[in-house]
Amino acid sequence: MSETTDAGLESITARLDDPETAAEEGHRKIAWARQHMPILHELRAEFEADQPLAGQTVGMAMHVEAKTAALTELLAAGGAEVAITGCNPLSTHDDVSAALDSHERITSYAERGVDDDTYYAAIEAVIGHEPTITVDDGMDMIAAIHQDYPELIDSVLGGCEETTTGVHRLRAMDDDGELRYPVFAVNDTPMKRLFDNVHGTGEAALSNIAMTTNLSFAGKTVVVAGYGDCGRGVAKKAKGQNAHVVVTEVDPNRALEAHMEGYEVTTMAEAAAKGDVFVTTTGNRDVITEEHFTRMNDGAVLANAGHFDVEVNLDQLADLAADVREAREGVTAYELPDGRRLNVLAEGRLVNLASPVAMGHPVEIMDQSFGIQAVAVREIVENGDAYGAGVHDVPDALDREVAEVKLEAEGIDIDTLSDEQREYMGSWDHGT
Amino acid sequence: MSETTDAGLESITARLDDPETAAEEGHRKIAWARQHMPILHELRAEFEADQPLAGQTVGMAMHVEAKTAALTELLAAGGAEVAITGCNPLSTHDDVSAALDSHERITSYAERGVDDDTYYAAIEAVIGHEPTITVDDGMDMIAAIHQDYPELIDSVLGGCEETTTGVHRLRAMDDDGELRYPVFAVNDTPMKRLFDNVHGTGEAALSNIAMTTNLSFAGKTVVVAGYGDCGRGVAKKAKGQNAHVVVTEVDPNRALEAHMEGYEVTTMAEAAAKGDVFVTTTGNRDVITEEHFTRMNDGAVLANAGHFDVEVNLDQLADLAADVREAREGVTAYELPDGRRLNVLAEGRLVNLASPVAMGHPVEIMDQSFGIQAVAVREIVENGDAYGAGVHDVPDALDREVAEVKLEAEGIDIDTLSDEQREYMGSWDHGT
Amino acid sequence: MSETTDAGLESITARLDDPETAAEEGHRKIAWARQHMPILHELRAEFEADQPLAGQTVGMAMHVEAKTAALTELLAAGGAEVAITGCNPLSTHDDVSAALDSHERITSYAERGVDDDTYYAAIEAVIGHEPTITVDDGMDMIAAIHQDYPELIDSVLGGCEETTTGVHRLRAMDDDGELRYPVFAVNDTPMKRLFDNVHGTGEAALSNIAMTTNLSFAGKTVVVAGYGDCGRGVAKKAKGQNAHVVVTEVDPNRALEAHMEGYEVTTMAEAAAKGDVFVTTTGNRDVITEEHFTRMNDGAVLANAGHFDVEVNLDQLADLAADVREAREGVTAYELPDGRRLNVLAEGRLVNLASPVAMGHPVEIMDQSFGIQAVAVREIVENGDAYGAGVHDVPDALDREVAEVKLEAEGIDIDTLSDEQREYMGSWDHGT
Amino acid sequence: MSETTDAGLESITARLDDPETAAEEGHRKIAWARQHMPILHELRAEFEADQPLAGQTVGMAMHVEAKTAALTELLAAGGAEVAITGCNPLSTHDDVSAALDSHERITSYAERGVDDDTYYAAIEAVIGHEPTITVDDGMDMIAAIHQDYPELIDSVLGGCEETTTGVHRLRAMDDDGELRYPVFAVNDTPMKRLFDNVHGTGEAALSNIAMTTNLSFAGKTVVVAGYGDCGRGVAKKAKGQNAHVVVTEVDPNRALEAHMEGYEVTTMAEAAAKGDVFVTTTGNRDVITEEHFTRMNDGAVLANAGHFDVEVNLDQLADLAADVREAREGVTAYELPDGRRLNVLAEGRLVNLASPVAMGHPVEIMDQSFGIQAVAVREIVENGDAYGAGVHDVPDALDREVAEVKLEAEGIDIDTLSDEQREYMGSWDHGT
Repeated sequence: MSETTDAGLESITARLDDPETAAEEGHRKIAWARQHMPILHELRAEFEADQPLAGQTVGMAMHVEAKTAALTELLAAGGAEVAITGCNPLSTHDDVSAALDSHERITSYAERGVDDDTYYAAIEAVIGHEPTITVDDGMDMIAAIHQDYPELIDSVLGGCEETTTGVHRLRAMDDDGELRYPVFAVNDTPMKRLFDNVHGTGEAALSNIAMTTNLSFAGKTVVVAGYGDCGRGVAKKAKGQNAHVVVTEVDPNRALEAHMEGYEVTTMAEAAAKGDVFVTTTGNRDVITEEHFTRMNDGAVLANAGHFDVEVNLDQLADLAADVREAREGVTAYELPDGRRLNVLAEGRLVNLASPVAMGHPVEIMDQSFGIQAVAVREIVENGDAYGAGVHDVPDALDREVAEVKLEAEGIDIDTLSDEQREYMGSWDHGT
Repeated sequence: MSETTDAGLESITARLDDPETAAEEGHRKIAWARQHMPILHELRAEFEADQPLAGQTVGMAMHVEAKTAALTELLAAGGAEVAITGCNPLSTHDDVSAALDSHERITSYAERGVDDDTYYAAIEAVIGHEPTITVDDGMDMIAAIHQDYPELIDSVLGGCEETTTGVHRLRAMDDDGELRYPVFAVNDTPMKRLFDNVHGTGEAALSNIAMTTNLSFAGKTVVVAGYGDCGRGVAKKAKGQNAHVVVTEVDPNRALEAHMEGYEVTTMAEAAAKGDVFVTTTGNRDVITEEHFTRMNDGAVLANAGHFDVEVNLDQLADLAADVREAREGVTAYELPDGRRLNVLAEGRLVNLASPVAMGHPVEIMDQSFGIQAVAVREIVENGDAYGAGVHDVPDALDREVAEVKLEAEGIDIDTLSDEQREYMGSWDHGT
Repeated sequence: MSETTDAGLESITARLDDPETAAEEGHRKIAWARQHMPILHELRAEFEADQPLAGQTVGMAMHVEAKTAALTELLAAGGAEVAITGCNPLSTHDDVSAALDSHERITSYAERGVDDDTYYAAIEAVIGHEPTITVDDGMDMIAAIHQDYPELIDSVLGGCEETTTGVHRLRAMDDDGELRYPVFAVNDTPMKRLFDNVHGTGEAALSNIAMTTNLSFAGKTVVVAGYGDCGRGVAKKAKGQNAHVVVTEVDPNRALEAHMEGYEVTTMAEAAAKGDVFVTTTGNRDVITEEHFTRMNDGAVLANAGHFDVEVNLDQLADLAADVREAREGVTAYELPDGRRLNVLAEGRLVNLASPVAMGHPVEIMDQSFGIQAVAVREIVENGDAYGAGVHDVPDALDREVAEVKLEAEGIDIDTLSDEQREYMGSWDHGT
Repeated sequence: MSETTDAGLESITARLDDPETAAEEGHRKIAWARQHMPILHELRAEFEADQPLAGQTVGMAMHVEAKTAALTELLAAGGAEVAITGCNPLSTHDDVSAALDSHERITSYAERGVDDDTYYAAIEAVIGHEPTITVDDGMDMIAAIHQDYPELIDSVLGGCEETTTGVHRLRAMDDDGELRYPVFAVNDTPMKRLFDNVHGTGEAALSNIAMTTNLSFAGKTVVVAGYGDCGRGVAKKAKGQNAHVVVTEVDPNRALEAHMEGYEVTTMAEAAAKGDVFVTTTGNRDVITEEHFTRMNDGAVLANAGHFDVEVNLDQLADLAADVREAREGVTAYELPDGRRLNVLAEGRLVNLASPVAMGHPVEIMDQSFGIQAVAVREIVENGDAYGAGVHDVPDALDREVAEVKLEAEGIDIDTLSDEQREYMGSWDHGT
């Protein structure tokens, strides 16, 4: 669509020079994603038949690229009107945005590289559609409604939030009593956390490191800082590429788990002198600092797989360095006064984005995450009344439903409990 | 010690023909265990120095074998008087029992193969010592005190329970308002659950299957029923021996986790026709039944790694069979009318006990479990007042303490958070 | 059978007190083995139909236990008369020997624990059957024929030798021009070497260490000395049990292969201070010596998976030790003057035999090895003329045939080359 | 250098618009490679000190990119004059070529994208330097000398050949009696084959598939066609990323090896219906054909990791397809009439080159390969007389030397045999 909203910003189609060609390329990208998103595919048949979102308007502020587009189209297929914009001016693909905008029930305002004013005007344009449901990646939409359009709040049934950071901010807002409608913490579901963090981060980090450096992992010593879900994923996949893995941790239980898994566990101070490749996954700052840089070997590669670029202290590294230069595309070499070169990937930002062809998380991973989004939106419509204002965990039943859909899509049958088995599990006087 | 208690049963030393020789052999067995229990070793120095249990009497009903003996001696080293008996008449090692009884602060009543009357007389004998703390594996001691010696309850500070079954029964008792002192659910601590179930069960099940059958795992199809902690352990270790692993589950999320790990996931009905070796780990009954037996290949091996012998329905198998015989020590062959032979290990009981040389869980695993027991007993003395009557989780701090002791014993240093890092982790307005 | 031969020794049946009961138990043991020997099973149908060995007499000197019995019965099923005795007085199972002797075409002279005179009389008794084919494990039969019955040599078509040591001795004999008929080096076939050494040794060594010590591998540092086929197997399987693996080598290429696989590679002097468990697989002497013992940690476990008991220098260890005692069945503890205890399994002999229930190599492994034996015996009959006196490699076609039989028995189909593909592979001017 | 040769073609520097800037960028690329090539680094010190190539002229025809440049510089450091050109007009990096040409002892004629005349003029220009040693990747230099400059042959000491194809062609030439000087088959050394094929191909294929498709491997069924060194590498690394791996083979022994490793083994006809991702590694044609395409699932990904683009029969696929289009950069989607889409990567050519950022084999892998090249060139100078005209294996001692250099560079110490051990290994009468 291409209408002009009250807020005045036109949809992307009206602003592009050649919207048709862009839309065509966008459709191509979306088609690729859809082909590998079996959960959204299965849900689509149900949504089309049941029209669970009929009469609703969904306002979205997310990364507008192919995988998100598949979710957006699913919501429209379920009967909703959808208005969407980006949650980061740099992550939008204009062709995907144009393809979405060409859908009769979707309006897209997202455009890559717009300035701050246009970015926020786009959010306002989405709000101009008077959404009854919000879907956020970073809670910008929720914040704007609460701050600037409080009159709309009563008509909003609820919202969904995709990211750790957004959920974190929402909980704080909730604690302050400021959150005025129910929001599902999609980020926190087991299915998202286990697959996204372990497999998604693990594989994407290693592929990107390999492609950015032209190096291999076999026989390398890979130091993984942090043994949470992301760290487990990186360690496991690096071992699977025949690296020798060293884990650092601050939590003794996690450290012991890593030890029992067969990894070498030690402090970063010790690991610094051993590692060929370092991957930080802690979510904390200053994990690798001056005291570690000075012990590292010439040629060491430093990558961050945590959300923010604070894990490797680049300020300290720059201070130490006699010379800083781009050694390759995506690789900054810091040369110490004694000639050793430490190679930082992607400027210490999420290494999954380091490669020039980086595309964010794998398609199947987002299929699981967006499958949860879709059923959470449906839940808001069907049972939103049951949830008060505030942040809510996605019900286990929905997590389970998405798992079932995925299994069915993969053609995997599983067993079911008989009545006798169900009774047995619920009792305590059997046995011995 | 060899005293006679009020209940009349003499300690084991008074009942054995040659207690000195037995004690010597028992000390040898305990020495082996102690050598591989670094946590108990570290705690011993602390307990000897601080005497945290001085003035206390610990009444124990546990498997009286070498690993338990190391715990018992630790409690005595911490200042306690200890009276112990078995929690199963068949699991007692008389030599270990005699070795314990030779300790000046320990009295042991456990004797292998005693009849029911003597078994319960032994529990009463322990109670005759008027314990201030109880340590159970199956809650027999707690039950006896509550039912028959209620006058002692006021002087009991608290108790510990080792097993799933005991904790399950205690929670039911607690729900009924009948549990009158605080009891720690040692079984449920992360450190016990993760290591005992994943690594302990996984390795022990496979070793015992290999030694009982003289078969190898390379190239075999191993069907693992259940993908909880035990199932994960068996699947992981079987894959580590180059088996092709098939997982069956009733829970879609777990099924999906197994699938994403790379295992084949299907129903038992399908898996039945593929498997060379079946290992049940569900904790449920009737996991493998008539409909599965009839599809299995000649020579299939069936093993249970769950607690009770109800997972493989042997009654149905016996009904199906034209012939039943012992094919090897520890292996019962059920020959179907068409000549196919299904080989059940250990009569469907826990396969870790199948081999003629089976010795229960590995020493290091019990070191972790008993490390938790020891600090939980100390916690009862030091902070028992803080816990009301009922079942309590072991505090995280104790779980963490034991992990730290283990890391130290292994010579593993880990990092610690700086103040800045601690502050960063606690805030939500950094980043983006 | 129970006849008396020229040499005067009666078959085992005539010498046992209760041969029928023994034979029954022997049949039970053989039945178990046969059930898990699909290659021999498949070959049996062919041998029974084709009678390739009709008119031949096979003289065997091998370990007379269940797996060998399955081979012996196969040769008889192929039409041969078979006379068999042991190749080691301690490895014979009398019940299996009696079961074989009860076969109308097999005579067994093997009896456990006989003295040297009877042992050699049994070999002579086998030779008394005037074998046309010999099957040895250690070349005792071949040696006796060449030395004491040269008049029989002209009627011998050929022989097979099972072990490294036998093949080694035969090659020396051949070099001296003394070997007067063709002998197949069954030991050296790829199929035996790859499966027996990598998977068989790897799994059997670990299972036996686990069962003998009651220890687990998770989180342990396992030092593997030697990275040949056996060492690769032990390292790979130990990694599969979540051990941290350290490899020592003298060959730089193998050392580099281990390094690229992700193992830590260092000298034994360095590894000595790190290891929890040491497994030697070098085939050489003095791999672990005084300089290493003195660096080891208290409680270290030393196991040998090489053929002879010379890899760990126990004389030096005994000299160092202040005390030597049996710590457990199968475990000798050497206590150093400073109190550290080093635990040697199976007295430094092959650890696969350490456990009280040790049964040698897994059944399926011997199925592959004995499958080669069977087709090699058939080859001697069918094409023996084509081979001159001397040691010969088993033709690749036979190795391939056995692989095909195994795949078929496992129900595994593979692809075949088309004519075009075959032509393409044979040419060099395609491509670029 | 920038001289004009007899053949008339100027070196690249004379032909580029801005050679200085190009050389600077080329030096940056070479610096990155050198930093991760420890073998060449170690050899350089030796070559600089010993000048083993003093007085020699090396003529090279290889891919002129950063890794090759590091080898070229090493040869110059060893005292040689070097003239180099490309072995493929599309693989040259002009900046690297310019950087080489700026070296006073190196002349480079390689330029990207030149026409055939200029390509061959460059080879002639190299020959114009009258090389005493040739280093080829595809034997173009050797062929040109033999055909067009036979008068130079007497002054050539020998040559090296890098690739399978070149070695294959040289052996045919040798068989025809046409090869007139000794050439080392560097391609065939164990160290190149084991690391390049297993680890190099395995890791590079998977990284490129991941980056080109934005898909993950966890839970995927990956079908690997061929279980030679490359297939083993791909299978092993795919398993290490939590894929379920299916192997197809035509050789029963290799099929059995794959089975014993725990992989599913079957025919391509069966595998076709199961696979999510297919990777061919056979070196043969028509591995995936019409009969397989018709069974595949919608969305299947087809990649080739073999040398030539003949493994997937794209002609048949194009005939079957109702539509063919680029689905993503590097991905061609063939849509079958029923709507299923089969996605072919890199047009069926080596997938390691599929990604827009593909850079060929990892740096460390080429370090090993080029380490062999360097010592083979040295061997030609020092002992070339000992080799007659023809193709020769690189002596084991050189393979071993490079392994030793790599271990030293990595700081890895290994053990050495004592005299007693050496004697023991050489004898046959020890033991038993």
